[in-house]
Amino acid sequence: MTVNKELLKYIESLEHTLSRDRQYFHTYPEVGWTEVRTAAVVMERLTSLGFDVKYGKSVIAASERMGLPTEAVLKEHFERTLMTSGIPEASLTPFKDGFTGVVGSINFGEGPIIGLRFDMDALKLTESNEEKHQPSKNGFISVHEGIMHACGHDGHTAIGLAVADVLSHFKDTFKYGGVKLIFQPAEEGVRGAKSMVASGVLDDVTHVFACHLMADIPYGKIICGTNGFMATSKMDVIFTGKPSHAGASPDQGKNALLAACTATLNLHAIPRHHKGASRINVGTLNAGTDRNVIADKAVLKIETRGENTEINDYMRQHAQRIIDSSAVMYGVASEVTFVGEAIGGYSDEIMIDHIEDIAKQLTCFSEIERTSSRAAGSEDFSYMMKAVQDRGGKAAYFSIGAAVDAKGRGHHTTMFDINESAMTDSVKVFASIVTRLLSDKK
Amino acid sequence: MTVNKELLKYIESLEHTLSRDRQYFHTYPEVGWTEVRTAAVVMERLTSLGFDVKYGKSVIAASERMGLPTEAVLKEHFERTLMTSGIPEASLTPFKDGFTGVVGSINFGEGPIIGLRFDMDALKLTESNEEKHQPSKNGFISVHEGIMHACGHDGHTAIGLAVADVLSHFKDTFKYGGVKLIFQPAEEGVRGAKSMVASGVLDDVTHVFACHLMADIPYGKIICGTNGFMATSKMDVIFTGKPSHAGASPDQGKNALLAACTATLNLHAIPRHHKGASRINVGTLNAGTDRNVIADKAVLKIETRGENTEINDYMRQHAQRIIDSSAVMYGVASEVTFVGEAIGGYSDEIMIDHIEDIAKQLTCFSEIERTSSRAAGSEDFSYMMKAVQDRGGKAAYFSIGAAVDAKGRGHHTTMFDINESAMTDSVKVFASIVTRLLSDKK
Amino acid sequence: MTVNKELLKYIESLEHTLSRDRQYFHTYPEVGWTEVRTAAVVMERLTSLGFDVKYGKSVIAASERMGLPTEAVLKEHFERTLMTSGIPEASLTPFKDGFTGVVGSINFGEGPIIGLRFDMDALKLTESNEEKHQPSKNGFISVHEGIMHACGHDGHTAIGLAVADVLSHFKDTFKYGGVKLIFQPAEEGVRGAKSMVASGVLDDVTHVFACHLMADIPYGKIICGTNGFMATSKMDVIFTGKPSHAGASPDQGKNALLAACTATLNLHAIPRHHKGASRINVGTLNAGTDRNVIADKAVLKIETRGENTEINDYMRQHAQRIIDSSAVMYGVASEVTFVGEAIGGYSDEIMIDHIEDIAKQLTCFSEIERTSSRAAGSEDFSYMMKAVQDRGGKAAYFSIGAAVDAKGRGHHTTMFDINESAMTDSVKVFASIVTRLLSDKK
Amino acid sequence: MTVNKELLKYIESLEHTLSRDRQYFHTYPEVGWTEVRTAAVVMERLTSLGFDVKYGKSVIAASERMGLPTEAVLKEHFERTLMTSGIPEASLTPFKDGFTGVVGSINFGEGPIIGLRFDMDALKLTESNEEKHQPSKNGFISVHEGIMHACGHDGHTAIGLAVADVLSHFKDTFKYGGVKLIFQPAEEGVRGAKSMVASGVLDDVTHVFACHLMADIPYGKIICGTNGFMATSKMDVIFTGKPSHAGASPDQGKNALLAACTATLNLHAIPRHHKGASRINVGTLNAGTDRNVIADKAVLKIETRGENTEINDYMRQHAQRIIDSSAVMYGVASEVTFVGEAIGGYSDEIMIDHIEDIAKQLTCFSEIERTSSRAAGSEDFSYMMKAVQDRGGKAAYFSIGAAVDAKGRGHHTTMFDINESAMTDSVKVFASIVTRLLSDKK
Repeated sequence: MTVNKELLKYIESLEHTLSRDRQYFHTYPEVGWTEVRTAAVVMERLTSLGFDVKYGKSVIAASERMGLPTEAVLKEHFERTLMTSGIPEASLTPFKDGFTGVVGSINFGEGPIIGLRFDMDALKLTESNEEKHQPSKNGFISVHEGIMHACGHDGHTAIGLAVADVLSHFKDTFKYGGVKLIFQPAEEGVRGAKSMVASGVLDDVTHVFACHLMADIPYGKIICGTNGFMATSKMDVIFTGKPSHAGASPDQGKNALLAACTATLNLHAIPRHHKGASRINVGTLNAGTDRNVIADKAVLKIETRGENTEINDYMRQHAQRIIDSSAVMYGVASEVTFVGEAIGGYSDEIMIDHIEDIAKQLTCFSEIERTSSRAAGSEDFSYMMKAVQDRGGKAAYFSIGAAVDAKGRGHHTTMFDINESAMTDSVKVFASIVTRLLSDKK
Repeated sequence: MTVNKELLKYIESLEHTLSRDRQYFHTYPEVGWTEVRTAAVVMERLTSLGFDVKYGKSVIAASERMGLPTEAVLKEHFERTLMTSGIPEASLTPFKDGFTGVVGSINFGEGPIIGLRFDMDALKLTESNEEKHQPSKNGFISVHEGIMHACGHDGHTAIGLAVADVLSHFKDTFKYGGVKLIFQPAEEGVRGAKSMVASGVLDDVTHVFACHLMADIPYGKIICGTNGFMATSKMDVIFTGKPSHAGASPDQGKNALLAACTATLNLHAIPRHHKGASRINVGTLNAGTDRNVIADKAVLKIETRGENTEINDYMRQHAQRIIDSSAVMYGVASEVTFVGEAIGGYSDEIMIDHIEDIAKQLTCFSEIERTSSRAAGSEDFSYMMKAVQDRGGKAAYFSIGAAVDAKGRGHHTTMFDINESAMTDSVKVFASIVTRLLSDKK
Repeated sequence: MTVNKELLKYIESLEHTLSRDRQYFHTYPEVGWTEVRTAAVVMERLTSLGFDVKYGKSVIAASERMGLPTEAVLKEHFERTLMTSGIPEASLTPFKDGFTGVVGSINFGEGPIIGLRFDMDALKLTESNEEKHQPSKNGFISVHEGIMHACGHDGHTAIGLAVADVLSHFKDTFKYGGVKLIFQPAEEGVRGAKSMVASGVLDDVTHVFACHLMADIPYGKIICGTNGFMATSKMDVIFTGKPSHAGASPDQGKNALLAACTATLNLHAIPRHHKGASRINVGTLNAGTDRNVIADKAVLKIETRGENTEINDYMRQHAQRIIDSSAVMYGVASEVTFVGEAIGGYSDEIMIDHIEDIAKQLTCFSEIERTSSRAAGSEDFSYMMKAVQDRGGKAAYFSIGAAVDAKGRGHHTTMFDINESAMTDSVKVFASIVTRLLSDKK
Repeated sequence: MTVNKELLKYIESLEHTLSRDRQYFHTYPEVGWTEVRTAAVVMERLTSLGFDVKYGKSVIAASERMGLPTEAVLKEHFERTLMTSGIPEASLTPFKDGFTGVVGSINFGEGPIIGLRFDMDALKLTESNEEKHQPSKNGFISVHEGIMHACGHDGHTAIGLAVADVLSHFKDTFKYGGVKLIFQPAEEGVRGAKSMVASGVLDDVTHVFACHLMADIPYGKIICGTNGFMATSKMDVIFTGKPSHAGASPDQGKNALLAACTATLNLHAIPRHHKGASRINVGTLNAGTDRNVIADKAVLKIETRGENTEINDYMRQHAQRIIDSSAVMYGVASEVTFVGEAIGGYSDEIMIDHIEDIAKQLTCFSEIERTSSRAAGSEDFSYMMKAVQDRGGKAAYFSIGAAVDAKGRGHHTTMFDINESAMTDSVKVFASIVTRLLSDKK
């Protein structure tokens, strides 16, 4: 079956809307669990397009949220949004206190339910104001100091809204099944997906898909099925000891800094696992108060990864033991908080077949790669994939090249930018997937 | 020869002035190299008392200053002082840009020159606002957020001014020699004395003395000669590597955090020196930007100490080598800045004899200890002692108990406080030393 | 083309000879570079079978030998062999001083030259004398205390001699090409292959093969092409410092033991490589002379591995830097000697096709696996593969299950043993490969 | 009171005997707990001189012995002595199985009992056979391969026998008190004294003395009272993990070598104690079996020291915690065995007075030092001092210079040698002490 020409034409007409939406989200970036404005805009749009919309506490299981900011941070951002966004308080309130998810459903009849996931959160980075940086030059640079959409989730959200528009516009074309558009908070740090799965949002979904715009991959290229997400655990560690004067009574202190250094070296020395790739990183270490005081506190941000869940479990368990025994060694207390977690995940071959086939039929892709050769990143979309696959469903994750020039841009950098045309292509793939899967019985 | 009764009586009359001065300095604490207000007040007072006063660049050798704050910090504090102190700009300007020393001289005739040193700087601490903390209760709590006189230098400065008053008042009593009152910045972190010595201020001084008020030693006790200052070196270390993504390319980074941890462990493992006590402390370690990034920067604050200069040299040299080789090990750059340094120092026995004798004659001391049994602290007054002793002169450093109650207070804590009566006693000792040394030929 | 029935029948008749040869070699195991007796026996046999035989210095490039034992060890073993083996001195002498390789060639005509490699060396292990251990029970236990064939190379050598017998017996059948039987010393520790390649022995070889008997894989199974040998480097490291009394003058020593510990921890913390599997192991560490002496010497045995040569190079370079900088850190000298090295290697797909096809036609294999899923071991046969492949030739390495019972035996253990029937099957595969490759033009 | 001239003259006549005895013991050195031959010779001599002699199990408390060799070692040495010493079996048997102490008593009447302690054991060192090494040149080099008197205990034992001779010869001179000559095994490693104290041997002793010949102090010098023995603990540590193949399954092992390295680094980083000198040394570390195997065993020899018992306790407790937590960190087992221990000790001032006075009266000392300025060594004689001092008795330990030339020799080195004349002087001091203390009431 070929992709629907009429539908593609309509999608091309949405190019301006896509750009406008993306630039709006780009201007008002919101970090994980604070996507109050973004979620409110999504909710309003889906509602106006006739979707059945759920949001806030009904799509987010409170206890499964990880890496939640402090109440003060949540409150401060909410207040700011209330004051400056021009969005009615009633539209913002459901997303207060870290419940920033939205799910829009449309049903055509009996049959499979296709879940499409779009992540909405930004990063803690101060956006570059250099002239050559498009968002700066063209006036949609972040107005939130220290926060920036530097991973393309602004584009993902815009794509989701465009897909909603298309499905609404063509709703009479479909006779069969339904679609759930899942707008997820807090993908950065792999903190949000688990709580949406736990809320039951995925329970009736039979196929689930997500896409990532890649600013470091040439525009015109698609990778049909990303395989081998690394399972990962994100830990915050606090060592608490006892201060003493480094000259007068060095033996009276309990040195949290030395415990942290010992833990760090030994964490990085965890043996390689014979079954596949593993990773460990102590990304930050902050310890001590003064040069002449035995440090009584050390705070570390750590992550482990594994090519699959088993390997990550191995890394995490070793890490825990090393942290605990380092604390005992120096007579200090240790506290480990898990602030993010993702399991391993893989795209189903048959879904990759569909996407590859679609990519070949679309004219927008000059380079089609079936699967990426080697994975390194982590994605909490893996929780959604597993939830669906465990019940016999299918899942896939595809990537679309969105480099702005030959060199492209690094993700998570202050000059990050995307080629906006890639959004149109992404919408085409999503729409084609739905068309194909919901047309089988037609 | 006995101490001068008349002089003691006059000193007792200064008790209120001492308290008022100390509380003024306590209210406006200034950290090392920013003692603009304090120095200006000292300069004005010494001038009005008829001293020959030198200050600013003429008593501070610019290149020998260590641990200078950034220009921005110096400037900001200067501006604040200009706006809020009510002191004329002309009186503040000499002390701008980190030249906050004052020296007042009085000459009586041919003969020895007695140097008396008073340190003026405060610490970076936020003072306790608890009711039971006298400065808080009695309204002279620090008005400079995050800065506090928590080591008694407010008292030392007040003592210096009272000694000036006494010398001025009794100047006709003395026929012989002279006195230099040396008000030093940046003793905390042992950063200031070296630059005053280098300016030549001590070149004609034949005897030099300093005193410390001890909030953790009972009021009524004097230690006549503190011996065995530890030599010390204060180092700031920066490791600079290269960031990379901890999942995608851990091998592409140059890990500054691991270099820092390796350095830290091995620094603490420097072999004990067989000739006496040594110390090492990595007091603070701050490294990395994000959990999933190989840390490209690590900043450490380190100090070494030795029972004498030889041992501290041994520690410092080992530290330097460990830091450098840790950097090489991880392919990162290392930069070591010495931000403070003090050599070892000792009080001359004959001067201790004088002080012990004076202490016995004064009625204010209920407990007299000749020398402290074991030293642990460091003091950059050691540079002044050595400068004088190297030329055949004599030096001593005495300590006066100033605990506010049975328990006393720890130095460098937010509840630090002194028994102000100890200031009067300190003035008595200083005055008696001068009387004794400048009366030999009378 | 099918495998040759007549040839298979002849091979089956060699079963007793195979067993006898293997048990002889098992009784007199010789570690790498001392295979004097083994090589002499091989030389004599190949000569008597009509092969053109080269050996000693003409097949081993002296300077490329790695991990050579000391002269004393070489000499002692040579003398023992001279005294006890009953082999004429003239037959042993060529192999003196570490030149224990033999190559037998047979030529049938123009055409490809097939190289078949057999390794001959044993391990430093004391063989179990338990009743249930066949070599012990049946009287062919090692008579060389502390040396044992615990990796099956006794079987490999026997296989090589049987292949020689077959080729000699059927030499008129072949009209085309030739075969080189390469008997290699010092495979354990990957020390010998490089020197045979460097001698030029492989220069005219167009196809090269080797086989390993696997005591931990069920008898009846064949793995047609082992892929992904890990590249590896074997290093001996000596740190040399200065002793001093740990109580009286700990600061006077240069601590080689601490340098070694620092190196070890940091070696194990070398970042994982994003391109694939890496390994590091400090296998042994021996340091110090006495409890109360600062250790002046530390000796380490280290190995690195990489999924490919690039990754192993990365590991080796990091290792070298860590070792050197640890030495600098402690003021000690470091000396790194490379005692073994192998590059990565892979079997050509087309050769695996041949072997898979042969295995299917032979009746002796009940389980046929095309390639092993994940490699971990290292083999210096990789040098031979690369030498041939670099010139456009082909190579493959296959493994044959040889477990003595359901559990099998671990390689490099004192109870190691093989199912001798697997040798016959191996000869069949080698002979079939030759038949197939040298019959293409017939 | 002056020293006894007649007695001194007699002592000088013993010079040859002293030399002969010392050279005999030097030729047959015996390590701690194996001093079978030495003890038998001592026992026979004391008996023949009329002393009341106790030995073996009656002077050694079995359970308090530390660092006992294995039974096999004890047995082997006993057998050798039986075969080669020419001493009757009956004289050797009491000392079998590690009971190698001898105590000879002589009583003159009521009054104080003076204990004099002499240590007898040798070290595990292979003596130099260089021409310029006197024992080698003059034919009394050790005949026990790998064992050597390299700390002068051969001299101490000879001194003890000479003192016995003198006391026996002059026994009618003394009317008052008594003397106990205590020949102690296993001083090296501070393993023996505790068990002699526990046997009750010191229970009636009122004054106890010991002397050390110092090969690195000029001949002619005496240090009258060595103060500040360091308390010390000697520990053997075994980490036991699980081996695995470093290439195929690095994650399956439990790495004892890494646990040992982590422990070692952190042991050396135990904070300095503010009350005085501390020491730590991991003197030997032996781990692992093979380059490509995760090390499953590591054995360490460790010692801690402290300027006093409190500080050593602090070091030992920290060491224990670091060892245990390092084991937990790597999932391995740890076992700590205490193989030697000495407490701190000090000479009584009044006894030092006596010795100083004696030294001044003797003509043999050109340089008299009252006390050594800084202690570093440990001595289990401290247990005897404490046992006596705790009951109100007095103790002292003096050192006598015995350098063979201007440079002297290091203790515990293979070229160790003493100036034998120093033995004569030592006997003079011992005899004078006895004379002085047992003549008070005459």
